[in-house]
Amino acid sequence: MRIVEIIQKKRDKKELTKEEIAFFVKGYTAGEIPDYQASALLMACFLNGLSEEETSCLTMEMMNSGDVLSLPFSHTVDKHSTGGVGDGVSLAIAPIVAAAGGKVAMMSGRGLGHTGGTLDKLDSIEGYDSALSVERFFETIGRVGCSIIGQTERLAPADKKLYALRDATGTVECKELITASILSKKLAEGVESLVLDVKTGSGAFMKKKEDAIELAEMMVKICKRMGRKVVAFVTDMDRPLGNKVGNLLEVQEAIEALQGRAPEDYMELTVRLSEEMLVLCGVATREQAKARVMEVIENGSALRTFREMAAMQGGNAELIDHPECFSKAKYNRVVYARESGYISRINAEGYGVAALLLGAGRNKKEDKIIPEAGIEILKKTGDCVEKGQPIAILYANNVTLFEESERRLHSSVEYSSKRVEKSPLFLAKID
Amino acid sequence: MRIVEIIQKKRDKKELTKEEIAFFVKGYTAGEIPDYQASALLMACFLNGLSEEETSCLTMEMMNSGDVLSLPFSHTVDKHSTGGVGDGVSLAIAPIVAAAGGKVAMMSGRGLGHTGGTLDKLDSIEGYDSALSVERFFETIGRVGCSIIGQTERLAPADKKLYALRDATGTVECKELITASILSKKLAEGVESLVLDVKTGSGAFMKKKEDAIELAEMMVKICKRMGRKVVAFVTDMDRPLGNKVGNLLEVQEAIEALQGRAPEDYMELTVRLSEEMLVLCGVATREQAKARVMEVIENGSALRTFREMAAMQGGNAELIDHPECFSKAKYNRVVYARESGYISRINAEGYGVAALLLGAGRNKKEDKIIPEAGIEILKKTGDCVEKGQPIAILYANNVTLFEESERRLHSSVEYSSKRVEKSPLFLAKID
Repeated sequence: MRIVEIIQKKRDKKELTKEEIAFFVKGYTAGEIPDYQASALLMACFLNGLSEEETSCLTMEMMNSGDVLSLPFSHTVDKHSTGGVGDGVSLAIAPIVAAAGGKVAMMSGRGLGHTGGTLDKLDSIEGYDSALSVERFFETIGRVGCSIIGQTERLAPADKKLYALRDATGTVECKELITASILSKKLAEGVESLVLDVKTGSGAFMKKKEDAIELAEMMVKICKRMGRKVVAFVTDMDRPLGNKVGNLLEVQEAIEALQGRAPEDYMELTVRLSEEMLVLCGVATREQAKARVMEVIENGSALRTFREMAAMQGGNAELIDHPECFSKAKYNRVVYARESGYISRINAEGYGVAALLLGAGRNKKEDKIIPEAGIEILKKTGDCVEKGQPIAILYANNVTLFEESERRLHSSVEYSSKRVEKSPLFLAKID
Repeated sequence: MRIVEIIQKKRDKKELTKEEIAFFVKGYTAGEIPDYQASALLMACFLNGLSEEETSCLTMEMMNSGDVLSLPFSHTVDKHSTGGVGDGVSLAIAPIVAAAGGKVAMMSGRGLGHTGGTLDKLDSIEGYDSALSVERFFETIGRVGCSIIGQTERLAPADKKLYALRDATGTVECKELITASILSKKLAEGVESLVLDVKTGSGAFMKKKEDAIELAEMMVKICKRMGRKVVAFVTDMDRPLGNKVGNLLEVQEAIEALQGRAPEDYMELTVRLSEEMLVLCGVATREQAKARVMEVIENGSALRTFREMAAMQGGNAELIDHPECFSKAKYNRVVYARESGYISRINAEGYGVAALLLGAGRNKKEDKIIPEAGIEILKKTGDCVEKGQPIAILYANNVTLFEESERRLHSSVEYSSKRVEKSPLFLAKID
């Protein structure tokens, strides 16, 4: 088998065989196929597409390029979001589902561009170890019911290498390659069931709803072919989720959710996804699920589970009892409304970039994140404001960062003289 | 400017600016843009195409990536063939045009796959130096009227690097990239006028006539935009040209042509292209041109010019006076007709590969060529043969090579019980 012939075949819009895809993934992971041949093939895949069969083979081969965990539990489940602004719900959902009886094995990634990463958020908890050994990961899930760690080096190494290459060669925004990338990692965790949250809108990678639906449909199909239980939601990311954007700020917001007092949209997403996970992994019926979720929030067991998980992973659990003691950024700046009227739109990507500029995200992979940096949103879409009223607070450890961030934030807010209807958060469900 | 954005632009079918193309060619040639980004861009160009403006900019930038010669002569002209089997007419054409008053500055390449290269053919002349300095190249043209040398390292280095990458990444067969590759080198030679011979058929890179016509039209347009006089012919390469395939054998055939006694198709191509070159570079009118070509062949001045050029470049000119003294391959094998009837088709690519298997060509770039190896064709398309009659003679320095080559040759010959019309050699003229 020759890689040039495989490239030519995909270039000529022909379907690759299982063997050809395996040859490529194995050869590339082993360093036998050079980057320049892999990138030509990726561009041909991007432009000519992959069939369901090809996408399934690619996912399988990428998953099998490293360790595939065999979880010693039943009712295992995980949740994956394609990434958004202010979307830290994983931190609340994992303990909720665990407290209700599910086993949540969650391996998360770092933030990318203007979107945050669960791992970066957890790093803001003093002492939290997100690099547990597999044994310790299993032990934590066994005792607490959930554990959130980083993807290990040995989890889908083919994806690690291919993702870096796609990033450098303009081949990121391709549904088939995104599907294989996400699912190769998630399925290697060994969970039986998976709830997918595909974001759409300005703050998401999928700007158009139709694209998000297509991606969700593709991921659901491939998951099912691989024998997993799966449900995908397409949810709105045209506006930021909740009231906080930033790593430590989003941990605080997750704790608020576990106390039942996070903002409405944040609670809605948390509850709905948790519900679906409970049904999917078989610990609750559709009828019971919502009541179970509300119960573990109201009786405090979900928050206790979060505390235990953090403690077992070395984190300072006292902070979780007193989120007001979390360290604060050195400086803050209030941003005031420039017009009077209803806020008709908050561009999520703009707020994401504004937070990134304060130190909450990375421009380059090497950039260091400032846990305390970020934005507290005081006014959201639909709210009525007077010119000069505070709409947000910026947090940073360096005052020189405020100016550009504030400018970016202002240009992300639109005002209207007419009352604005809130758009729904859940746009589609695919199962 | 960022290369990833340039890749994304072409990926999204947008037109690149002159500046973006220059940024890519300069950066890649200088080693600042890595192979893996260049190959992704090449695949995007392959699949989404390039506009005339883009192709023109790419050609210009690739040409300017190295030395661009300024020939100190008027009436300068060159000829380029896209490559075929048995097509050594450049060796005859250069001295014919020179003897008739043109100045032929020809920089040639090596053989690729089943097609031969002018430079490999010249290397069969004992002592011939195809690596002259630019000064010596000019001096030879000045005195003799023509010189054929290899492309120097400093001629269009961008093309050298890009061609090797295209070869390894399945992006060779793209008209725009072929145009830029050929013309960047040919135009860097500094000639005022250029005759292009675009081959089509089984023995050519362009298998389909329509593709060859499109390529010819594109090259003519780009040449004109760059201020050169140009004519392109599309000629048949479904059958081998002439009676000889192999390096030394093709030098002998060129000498036969200079003596006016090469096979009919070989003479037709030689005379027609020479004629056009004389008209284009302004040393003869359309009415005079053919007579001038026949005159320099018949009075022996074209052959003398070839002898002088070879001598000035260190070649053993005695051999040119006595081509029968050329060294012969150690072994030969006669191939006999397997059927009686008319030869209805000779697959040129098949004959090319059969010759390559004997040592006349390279499978890999590192392979060494055996000058004496090749095929003498005794029966051509349209000829009537009896089963068991000789149809070809194979030449090699190693008897073990005959078997596979003979098998390949047999499978390239088709017989018919009906008389077969010869198809025309010249299929289209574009100017």
